[in-house]
Amino acid sequence: MPDTHANPPSCSRATLLAERYGAPQLSGGPWSGTIDTMLSHASVRAYLDTKLPLGTIETLVAAAQSAATSSNLQVWSVVAVEDAERRGRLAELAGGQRHIRQAPLFLAWLADLSRAERVAGAVGVTLEGLPFLETFLVAAIDAALAAQNATVAAESLGLGTCYIGGLRNRPLDVAAELGLPPGAFAIFGLCVGYPDPAYPASAKPRLPPEAVLHREQYDAAPERDAVATFDARLATFQRSQGMAAQGWSQLVANRLRTPASLSGRDRLVAALRALGFGLR
Amino acid sequence: MPDTHANPPSCSRATLLAERYGAPQLSGGPWSGTIDTMLSHASVRAYLDTKLPLGTIETLVAAAQSAATSSNLQVWSVVAVEDAERRGRLAELAGGQRHIRQAPLFLAWLADLSRAERVAGAVGVTLEGLPFLETFLVAAIDAALAAQNATVAAESLGLGTCYIGGLRNRPLDVAAELGLPPGAFAIFGLCVGYPDPAYPASAKPRLPPEAVLHREQYDAAPERDAVATFDARLATFQRSQGMAAQGWSQLVANRLRTPASLSGRDRLVAALRALGFGLR
Repeated sequence: MPDTHANPPSCSRATLLAERYGAPQLSGGPWSGTIDTMLSHASVRAYLDTKLPLGTIETLVAAAQSAATSSNLQVWSVVAVEDAERRGRLAELAGGQRHIRQAPLFLAWLADLSRAERVAGAVGVTLEGLPFLETFLVAAIDAALAAQNATVAAESLGLGTCYIGGLRNRPLDVAAELGLPPGAFAIFGLCVGYPDPAYPASAKPRLPPEAVLHREQYDAAPERDAVATFDARLATFQRSQGMAAQGWSQLVANRLRTPASLSGRDRLVAALRALGFGLR
Repeated sequence: MPDTHANPPSCSRATLLAERYGAPQLSGGPWSGTIDTMLSHASVRAYLDTKLPLGTIETLVAAAQSAATSSNLQVWSVVAVEDAERRGRLAELAGGQRHIRQAPLFLAWLADLSRAERVAGAVGVTLEGLPFLETFLVAAIDAALAAQNATVAAESLGLGTCYIGGLRNRPLDVAAELGLPPGAFAIFGLCVGYPDPAYPASAKPRLPPEAVLHREQYDAAPERDAVATFDARLATFQRSQGMAAQGWSQLVANRLRTPASLSGRDRLVAALRALGFGLR
């Protein structure tokens, strides 16, 4: 339902947009409190050990389940990990990310074709449509839409979050740790907890919209200037965070330069096959 | 920012949960107006021809760009299609979905590795990390997180939306229509417009949470009862919509029974390779 009137922005829209893009922006469009929440997003990597209110997981899952799902197939699941030792082991499997150990809740989001296979099996049907890349992709998209609802829901409650792509570094070990059946794959994680105010997270600047938004057809013409502008803005942000001011172009070049820079995920096809995905 | 206090639910939480699950639910967790918006989600397949307020696309894109993106790589783009004839052609390519023609705005979300390749090329670097399934998956996830923010943002403004997976039926034709460069793939579409009140959309029931939410480790034990319950609830819903009351198990079985039921998407690997994705 619309919240344009019910929920006046508590932060200035101009301020939120300027932080998001690393520079002032025109902002003539419609707006809502929900959009305020989204624009305020910053990945949180330092958490208090404060417990979450009772029922938080259930609320986040209800929000996640309310996202669209292709043909209502619901080919995703989530494992809620609160046990500190398991969080510690998952932190190591994801490349030693301390915030997984620190946040009271870790959600492992699953692309999950195993439930569909069981359910169809119970009515005597073998699903010949399962072992295709398309079907894996449906599960991946379903999981991502669900997780993003949970993320925004958590942030609307004053909680912080951090996506963990490192959960794909060692998929078989993660599957063993979470007891996953064949056909289920932990596609990414999400830390959830109260941000530690001693280490405030900052909204990370994004490309100028003209580099990602195209009208009617793809047009790369405005990209060159937009990226040059963004290289400078991101360098300023990186400096403000005490990071090396490499800009964005170098960040992209370094992150994807070699297969080794994928942290083991260059072997994802083999791992997914071992987990029961056909990917045809 | 939290909106728990600023934005009291305008609909009853109990009503929203009962519609989402097709039966009353306990609801003791924390809540917000943003979560109200999410729980109210229903895919809209009938639109008024009312134009969107000026600046709507820019607001939706700012929300989309505020979603998390792996390593700030921002490997997604979006093509905003307003031209009625192009929407008509895309409607045909997506399997004849009339609502693409009807809604004033169609957003084609792209998994886009082409920008990263151009940007790294400009600093003299060849990205050997590009032709991997992992990198395609990062782009797919980035696009989905962005699109879901845009979706919830649109709904918070009183607009309706509908995801269009049918955009993957004929990926090469869609790429030609949108003028996509190699390395860009239209992963799904999104209709955006004002819902036609003459054809109100209903929230589609989802599986009981115990079928998708696992604690500490995956546990399929509660699934059988949950699915039986859900088969009955979904049949009731289907009947209320004038649809065949097949329940959920049969829906899953029918949707994925054969490769032919994937509407051409069983050839997605070949299409992606033709579009420049390595998928190694």
